[in-house]
Amino acid sequence: MKLFELSGADEDIRFSPFVIRIKMALKHKEIDFHAVPIKFTDKSPIEPSGSKTVPVIEDNGKWVKESWDIACYLEKQYQKAPSLFGGDIGTAQTKFINAWSDAVLVRGLFPIIVSDIIPHFTDEDRAYFIPLREKLLGMTIAETIGIRDKIIPQFNSSLTPLRVMLKSQNFICGDTPGYADYSVFGPFQWARIASPLKLIKEGDPIYDWQERMLGLFDGFARSAKLGY
Amino acid sequence: MKLFELSGADEDIRFSPFVIRIKMALKHKEIDFHAVPIKFTDKSPIEPSGSKTVPVIEDNGKWVKESWDIACYLEKQYQKAPSLFGGDIGTAQTKFINAWSDAVLVRGLFPIIVSDIIPHFTDEDRAYFIPLREKLLGMTIAETIGIRDKIIPQFNSSLTPLRVMLKSQNFICGDTPGYADYSVFGPFQWARIASPLKLIKEGDPIYDWQERMLGLFDGFARSAKLGY
Repeated sequence: MKLFELSGADEDIRFSPFVIRIKMALKHKEIDFHAVPIKFTDKSPIEPSGSKTVPVIEDNGKWVKESWDIACYLEKQYQKAPSLFGGDIGTAQTKFINAWSDAVLVRGLFPIIVSDIIPHFTDEDRAYFIPLREKLLGMTIAETIGIRDKIIPQFNSSLTPLRVMLKSQNFICGDTPGYADYSVFGPFQWARIASPLKLIKEGDPIYDWQERMLGLFDGFARSAKLGY
Repeated sequence: MKLFELSGADEDIRFSPFVIRIKMALKHKEIDFHAVPIKFTDKSPIEPSGSKTVPVIEDNGKWVKESWDIACYLEKQYQKAPSLFGGDIGTAQTKFINAWSDAVLVRGLFPIIVSDIIPHFTDEDRAYFIPLREKLLGMTIAETIGIRDKIIPQFNSSLTPLRVMLKSQNFICGDTPGYADYSVFGPFQWARIASPLKLIKEGDPIYDWQERMLGLFDGFARSAKLGY
């Protein structure tokens, strides 16, 4: 099993939120994998997949792209390992939580951490990344720093559903984690690796959940190299 | 099975979003029930439950309060009927979606529709309701009308996770609805009954999902009396 993922100029700095979801899912499924770093400006290693984005996996010659489709593939292909979704209703509901993670976490965190992400790139990746992302943001990267004070509280308040729910259960999936947890953890770990900002404070139920997530699989996510 | 719920001065106008969740859950579990209207200012009928809010059920002499606890009670007590949650992971994930529905839908819709809700009450209920809610809102009911144009687009954009997910499946729970659907439907039906505003437009995947929800159980929710 090969997993292709984005890295910084330092190949040990690997921070795609979508890839982190799949790394956690592979650990959950107890699958050994080899993680292959690629760059924004050299996607030739993933050409056989037909994808221009990571994650991509190559499993025994079979290529699968898109994090959601990879999770579904792993669930189906590795049925004897612990379930990621917990049946049909669980799968459908995970898709909602995955969409929440994309819309609220990935999109909410991006303008907050983007200025901290950029220093990690190679010069070529930076030249590629900045104009595209500034267009998407509708502002310069420098301007994002100026709006942080305004948008961090908004981001924090958008976490209410997660915070409320984690007061009465350890994981989004209950007593033990599942793909919904990995889907939500991806963006938080992305921010943790790429930015020195401490967005979630001690005493917040989300902080305690993040600590539990970092401890899973013998501290797998905790051992990721941090950018700061 | 008795279900206690809030009504307007017209006892056929019944719009608690939390009660609507349980009505749908009772239909899902194929349980016949008798719905008993109460008023904000006369909660004596639900005194035995120890609750000051609806929904409350009395099932064969047993009283249960709080919509989430009632749903869990129904799931456990009526195991032969179709499942509301789909197992342990499904239950845990539904709790997240229920918290999302509370934080984003109930709280998001309240300032938008509150001025339309008030005319439905009895004079006594209005006198009780208005000061408490104005304190909660931090503004007068009249002032909420002035901010509608600003907050309706914000509300609509907070629906992105639901909208994205409904592009690829019919219900939040997959091919058929479950409690997560009822939990999210409650606030939409509350707005539909209490306000003439058309917040969700035709062509939106959420509109189509709402139509499917209204058609369930022989058009049960569609037959609810509307306030406008």
